Amino acid sequence: MATEQTSIAGLCAEAKAAAPALALAPREQKDAALEALAALLEARSAELIEANAIDLQAAEEAGLSAALVDRLLLDEPRIAAIAAGARDVAALDDPVGEIIDERQLENGLELRKLRVPLGVVAVVYEARPNVTIDASALCLKSGNACLLRGSGSAQHSNAMMVEIAADAAGAVGLPRGVITLVGGGREQLAELATQQGVVDLIVPRGGEGLKAALEQVATIPVLYAASGNCHVFVDRAAKLQQAARIAINAKVQRPGVCNAAETLLIHRDVAAEFVPVVVDQMAAAGVELRTDEATRRFAGKERGELLSEATESDWATEFLDLILAVKIVDSVDEAAAHIARYGSGHSEAIISEDEVAVRAFELSVDAACVYVNASTRFTDGAEFGMGAEIGNSTQKLHARGPIGLRELCTFKYIITGAGHVRG
Amino acid sequence: MATEQTSIAGLCAEAKAAAPALALAPREQKDAALEALAALLEARSAELIEANAIDLQAAEEAGLSAALVDRLLLDEPRIAAIAAGARDVAALDDPVGEIIDERQLENGLELRKLRVPLGVVAVVYEARPNVTIDASALCLKSGNACLLRGSGSAQHSNAMMVEIAADAAGAVGLPRGVITLVGGGREQLAELATQQGVVDLIVPRGGEGLKAALEQVATIPVLYAASGNCHVFVDRAAKLQQAARIAINAKVQRPGVCNAAETLLIHRDVAAEFVPVVVDQMAAAGVELRTDEATRRFAGKERGELLSEATESDWATEFLDLILAVKIVDSVDEAAAHIARYGSGHSEAIISEDEVAVRAFELSVDAACVYVNASTRFTDGAEFGMGAEIGNSTQKLHARGPIGLRELCTFKYIITGAGHVRG
Repeated sequence: MATEQTSIAGLCAEAKAAAPALALAPREQKDAALEALAALLEARSAELIEANAIDLQAAEEAGLSAALVDRLLLDEPRIAAIAAGARDVAALDDPVGEIIDERQLENGLELRKLRVPLGVVAVVYEARPNVTIDASALCLKSGNACLLRGSGSAQHSNAMMVEIAADAAGAVGLPRGVITLVGGGREQLAELATQQGVVDLIVPRGGEGLKAALEQVATIPVLYAASGNCHVFVDRAAKLQQAARIAINAKVQRPGVCNAAETLLIHRDVAAEFVPVVVDQMAAAGVELRTDEATRRFAGKERGELLSEATESDWATEFLDLILAVKIVDSVDEAAAHIARYGSGHSEAIISEDEVAVRAFELSVDAACVYVNASTRFTDGAEFGMGAEIGNSTQKLHARGPIGLRELCTFKYIITGAGHVRG
Repeated sequence: MATEQTSIAGLCAEAKAAAPALALAPREQKDAALEALAALLEARSAELIEANAIDLQAAEEAGLSAALVDRLLLDEPRIAAIAAGARDVAALDDPVGEIIDERQLENGLELRKLRVPLGVVAVVYEARPNVTIDASALCLKSGNACLLRGSGSAQHSNAMMVEIAADAAGAVGLPRGVITLVGGGREQLAELATQQGVVDLIVPRGGEGLKAALEQVATIPVLYAASGNCHVFVDRAAKLQQAARIAINAKVQRPGVCNAAETLLIHRDVAAEFVPVVVDQMAAAGVELRTDEATRRFAGKERGELLSEATESDWATEFLDLILAVKIVDSVDEAAAHIARYGSGHSEAIISEDEVAVRAFELSVDAACVYVNASTRFTDGAEFGMGAEIGNSTQKLHARGPIGLRELCTFKYIITGAGHVRG
């Protein structure tokens, strides 16, 4: 396998050499590569399941939890879903060549601002092997050569999937080097993150540990597909039934993802009525509540004794689990201040029928997505009509929120004259 | 002066505290601050010239070149021009609150993508003190609190200008802390560049030394307003008179700026006719040519003896002076390959009447601005109709080319529902 023989710098240089052919590939060729990718995944699923079995066995021998082993698992239905995902990406509009702006300057020069691929994109991710194909498909469609650095625990599955993806590229006349697996430890990650002039972007999908590691070493641009410490604020002017339904959905519908809610903020004026209702509903849904003292008081003696005390670190934690922190606040401003202090700039919701409160929340909360009377769970490329995504950015530069095909591109200005010189 | 009493982290925290008031300021208030800034610069020009005199004297005593001393100089006409620049920024459209996208999702949610300020922007720059006001004005208008780190050689001028700018902000009811001067050496620069969660962006305007220093230490997002190693390629299908005029303009009209040409590439098929013409015109304009052997041969014996040999490092150098490297190439592809190897991704021009050659150059040259039959000198926010700029980005992420008001902003999604939960 190439990853065992070639240095990280060597693999990156090969990706850069392969990139122009993909950047200039017409839509038809890229879509054909994606169809070939889907077809090959289906045709070679037995081989892939065999490779995956090696990873599964190693994971079990290493004593990984059942949940983590399940994340690693590839079976026929999952492979079919991954193949379908590649076909979905083929169906999306080609972002490359889109005209973002087109006008004539005062001096007569014709200016066009065209969307073009970034060049070489590295994606760093954790256990789920499906990301290998999702990221390959998004990079293919957006015209970017990609370097994939998955988890060591999925190495055999990833190697087989990258072989299949490279075969698919090759089958339509693209260089196989447009999709490359890179491996290694922290040292190799640092080498990857310092390939200035070779790798145009690195997208880490993972927890705060990966983020911290990259912040220290990266010299190339990084787009963090980062964690979400999301809040739902129930204003005094909320419809309380609606508020409870949204809070439950934001916490419970899929607790292990970045757009799930981690803290519920409740306006003091509705706390006496709302707290008992939401505490009971959360308990029925199996949610552990960690609350401030006021919440326990509003819950009443009996319920209150079942609630644990939230620590300072609970307000800052992305539980990714059926755990919710709950706090009483006196105003929209206090809710916004709490979010400014503890939030990660991902998705924040207000439930309110009061236009003034809604407007204040919209203006003062600094996050990728601000929801009004809706669950935070909608932050997602597909939900936003952007198609598949490579993650959600909590950064402010370049991409904020879902990172889709357009966000994997840059642009260039083409300026056409008739001998124009500057006076 | 605050810069002498407060730590960098303390100043940054003050800027962050001041930022929300500016981010939410209506256009009228920001424009009033800019008008107050212009008026105060004019009213206090004597004071400013006095402060500037201290910097000038120190520069002369330190033996700075006449050119560098001239860059430092502030006099009445220059102050008037700086004030006029602030008024020009007031006249530009407010980028904050612009709706970038607005649509209803399939599930009925209303999605708006709104332009909002980044928050706190740090600008690091060199000698010219006018940048202090230019950057202040652009940050004010784009709703960003700014931290300005100018050159030590302009410290008294900068301190006075920042005092005036803070006074202008205060005069319209904005916190004075929205404009702050920071000082210090490399250690303080590193402290500034690692203010994660406090400073949202750092824009270094300066040479490769500053860029290299920041690449090593920065953990916050950086937007390099960087150097330009720009090329003019004269294709075999060029109108040769036009080509000479463009090459002269790109090199000579203002050689000390980033969008001036540094290398001229000439197609072999027109070299016999074009080289003697352009060599004579460049000589007449006082340009020193550093060429490959083929150019000297095409120049003829007499002219050729006046041309020096280009070294490997000449192809990679941004001369910022009346020096031009010249090379003969065999094709558009060879020109593009030379640009890919030595260019800095700033501004690249092809002179050609051949549509196929033009299209190949447009597609294969990876730069912020690709010119067809026009001088590279047009890469500029004002020329592009974007208004004033804080510099030109040669990065691919977030901003490429001129960094104007919109590029100093991010966006947020506001998603409005009626109790929407995800199924």
